[in-house]
Amino acid sequence: MPVNQIPLSPLPLLARAARIFPERTATIYGEQRQTFRRFHERVRRLGNGLRALGIGPEDRVAALVPNTPTLLEAHFGIPMAGGVIVAINTRLGGGEVAYILEHSGSSVLLVDRGLLGTLRPAFAQMRGLRHVLVIDDPAAGPDDGWRPPGSADYETWLAGASAEEPPEAVRDELQTIAINYTSGTTGKPKGVMYSHRGACLNALSDGLQHGLSAQSVYLWTLPMFHCNGWCFTWAVPAMAATSVCLRQVEPNRVRDLIVRERVTHFCGAPVVLQMLAQLAESQPFRFDSPVRAATGGAPPSPTLLAGMSKLNVEVTHLYGLTETYGPCTICEVQDDWLKLPLDRYAERVSRQGVPHYLAGEIAVLDSAGAPVPADAAAMGEICIRGNTVMKGYHGDAAATEKAFAGGWFHTGDLGVLHPDGYIELRDRSKDIIISGGENISTIEVENTLAAHPDILEAAVVSRPDPKWGEVPVAFVALKPGRALTAEAIIAFCRERLAHFKCPQTVHFESLPRTSTGKVQKFALRERMWQGQAKRIQGA
Amino acid sequence: MPVNQIPLSPLPLLARAARIFPERTATIYGEQRQTFRRFHERVRRLGNGLRALGIGPEDRVAALVPNTPTLLEAHFGIPMAGGVIVAINTRLGGGEVAYILEHSGSSVLLVDRGLLGTLRPAFAQMRGLRHVLVIDDPAAGPDDGWRPPGSADYETWLAGASAEEPPEAVRDELQTIAINYTSGTTGKPKGVMYSHRGACLNALSDGLQHGLSAQSVYLWTLPMFHCNGWCFTWAVPAMAATSVCLRQVEPNRVRDLIVRERVTHFCGAPVVLQMLAQLAESQPFRFDSPVRAATGGAPPSPTLLAGMSKLNVEVTHLYGLTETYGPCTICEVQDDWLKLPLDRYAERVSRQGVPHYLAGEIAVLDSAGAPVPADAAAMGEICIRGNTVMKGYHGDAAATEKAFAGGWFHTGDLGVLHPDGYIELRDRSKDIIISGGENISTIEVENTLAAHPDILEAAVVSRPDPKWGEVPVAFVALKPGRALTAEAIIAFCRERLAHFKCPQTVHFESLPRTSTGKVQKFALRERMWQGQAKRIQGA
Repeated sequence: MPVNQIPLSPLPLLARAARIFPERTATIYGEQRQTFRRFHERVRRLGNGLRALGIGPEDRVAALVPNTPTLLEAHFGIPMAGGVIVAINTRLGGGEVAYILEHSGSSVLLVDRGLLGTLRPAFAQMRGLRHVLVIDDPAAGPDDGWRPPGSADYETWLAGASAEEPPEAVRDELQTIAINYTSGTTGKPKGVMYSHRGACLNALSDGLQHGLSAQSVYLWTLPMFHCNGWCFTWAVPAMAATSVCLRQVEPNRVRDLIVRERVTHFCGAPVVLQMLAQLAESQPFRFDSPVRAATGGAPPSPTLLAGMSKLNVEVTHLYGLTETYGPCTICEVQDDWLKLPLDRYAERVSRQGVPHYLAGEIAVLDSAGAPVPADAAAMGEICIRGNTVMKGYHGDAAATEKAFAGGWFHTGDLGVLHPDGYIELRDRSKDIIISGGENISTIEVENTLAAHPDILEAAVVSRPDPKWGEVPVAFVALKPGRALTAEAIIAFCRERLAHFKCPQTVHFESLPRTSTGKVQKFALRERMWQGQAKRIQGA
Repeated sequence: MPVNQIPLSPLPLLARAARIFPERTATIYGEQRQTFRRFHERVRRLGNGLRALGIGPEDRVAALVPNTPTLLEAHFGIPMAGGVIVAINTRLGGGEVAYILEHSGSSVLLVDRGLLGTLRPAFAQMRGLRHVLVIDDPAAGPDDGWRPPGSADYETWLAGASAEEPPEAVRDELQTIAINYTSGTTGKPKGVMYSHRGACLNALSDGLQHGLSAQSVYLWTLPMFHCNGWCFTWAVPAMAATSVCLRQVEPNRVRDLIVRERVTHFCGAPVVLQMLAQLAESQPFRFDSPVRAATGGAPPSPTLLAGMSKLNVEVTHLYGLTETYGPCTICEVQDDWLKLPLDRYAERVSRQGVPHYLAGEIAVLDSAGAPVPADAAAMGEICIRGNTVMKGYHGDAAATEKAFAGGWFHTGDLGVLHPDGYIELRDRSKDIIISGGENISTIEVENTLAAHPDILEAAVVSRPDPKWGEVPVAFVALKPGRALTAEAIIAFCRERLAHFKCPQTVHFESLPRTSTGKVQKFALRERMWQGQAKRIQGA
């Protein structure tokens, strides 16, 4: 290896933190506190254990685990073996998980005991798995005793692995570190590949943008499976800061942890902030020290900003996609905004903003690929290029090529450029709904509906929702002579899809069509969004 | 260019700052305040102007300029043309400057009018220069009217250059961005090459380690020519923070600027901090808000730390070399040190510490290249590898190869490793003196002395100095029958060398020799350092 060039990766940053601050607290989980010494030791054991299972560079290892220290460790331990972490959305159904395991080619699965119920019905489909390691977290609730055939207990297995420093597994900084599955416009989720270089740079930018230091205490309200927690999974340990983990986001618990552990930072969709605001309405409180919260997936509303300000929470608005390692823009607050009345301040902050330090270039391009004027009126597609754009879609060169057409990553989001250079989202790809920060492919839901024997055809669009930003609604035409209730249709979907993807409302009617016979989803969306200035929703 | 990979460089970070914060103050210089809009415009003009002069990738452009906004601009403008900035120590003599210009192959020179006196006597030797641009700073003092033949006025020239965005000049992140000349052990200064990647990463690490943000105000007490101001020349504008420039470090002025401009950060050798402490002894003061000062070149003493604490200055101790883009270690403060009495705290902080976030690996290796035990006793050479190790020495492949022997950069500094993993310097290469943060090659001074017609032989070693850390002293043997005073010898050196390099004391005596006839410099050093625990000095 050259003296003056080593691969950029989050791994050496953890090694540094553990070497310099071995006794500092790496993770807090309920009453468990773990030092960096122990955290790093467990990471090394995981790396060595996986190597012993045959995992090497670019081999995929999946994790279906809530926001526990174990999942945080896996973000370092899997790459330490050279492997690629596939952190799976814990709200998905068994069939969806099976698809991801198979598509990613994961040969090893780390699964929390509390999520075995998801796995069980679809386990027979998971034929590519060679090893299943069950994490028997006592906090996972009652144990029905079922274990996947041939699986091993994670802690027993880990204890048997070497704690030595494993041999260097990252020789090329463009090696894949993670694959994150996201619902794109084509129905089935796509596997977005992150490189060690990109993950490292995004983590550094997280640190700089949000003022992380070794004194920070980060609360895990954002799922780690969501773009690897916007790369905070790497950033927080890299800075030698403390991670406070929690399995579920409950407002009381979030408030109590912020107070008890002196939390300085957390992230989440606006719905997380909203929960805290609602709690404060019934049981008023205010944090002693300012807490920095980053939010994205939907713009924060004036009401939410006012609510957070009362709690001593400083809100930063971010925007991004799975394809950009999470946030690619930050709505940097200008000094003179601080003098504005709240509604005008919120108007400024509701914009998606400007590239973060290392996001590269972000442009709003018209259909010919030319930049739109910065007039807050001309619409174009938000396009990005830089070191924190994904490597590509796993096993889907055609989709990658399409996404990268013309030398830019095409987000599918439509927006305007303001005269001050800030981007504002006005609409997004017609086939994506973002609900509580998570992508839903309307096509995936439509395909599920169409599989019902009584349904002739279906269209799914979003409608604004005060809590989740937006939610899916279905328009359904039944086959002649069939009868079906909305409840039955929703139940049908819930057996096959994660609950957050299922329609909240079902409209029974024949679908509007163009003269060529194409369903006019646009017209359906317009009905749902009447009276709204934009086609995306703030919380 | 690929969608997902752009060269790491400080340049896009400035472009970002100027785009997002055009009205924020980039530089303060006396009563002049310059916005980022204007700063970036001047940088673009410089880039375009240099291109028009034929400067392209890897072409060297030298700058002999004090710590003014112009020199800060040059750190971006020269690389924007693809060029390499050679920022020259303003304390060097004309002959030394001529050597650097020639060795670096600089074809363009930016020179402050106040430094023309340095240039004039040696200008005839500077044959490689095609263009000399004189910066007529009114603060440069009286003007004797002399200008280098064929030179142009910088501001007139700059005003004639285009302010357009110049074409992309950085296609490879390993392209050279700067060459810094440093006195090594071989007498003549060597040109240390920095890459865009290394400069960017070191700047990011500066930002993270020292908590820089867009709200920071940085005071330029550290010379920008010194390892490009430890890469803060790039870090501070990159973070959209404000630079407060000053031509000369005077304690009153430093104190007044910190107060007036609400300075949050500054850097410098301990002598800079000491000046402030001394000022406070005669005119007590204390800063309202904490000021973060980073110091290196010599460890801060307990007295100095106590003095700074009284002033509300928080001191961070760094260690590094020109070859490591400035600091490569930081003495990270452990939580429990804060409870120690001052002298024990200072003992901890006087150690050189641990790698900064992106410094890579730092080891203490014995003569066989094996790590020494972490016992605070076994001595070894401090060796480094990582992304912030230089590209190499310009035009000196042999010296580069030697410095990189065995896959490590060899610092020539000797030290121990403490059980807590912190490095402590105990001695340095016998041929280097660090005085007030600047390297002095004893061999260069010896060669100068040997050129005197009355001197038979000379040896130069360091002695501890309460102000400068250490200073050079000469041992001189005269030719038979000759007579010479110490004053005459020092004056002879001052005509040929920067004043800081000249011996402070001259001892007349025959030099001690080994049985094989080699001068025992070791014995001379020991005499100078008797009673000192280490062979390097804290301020």
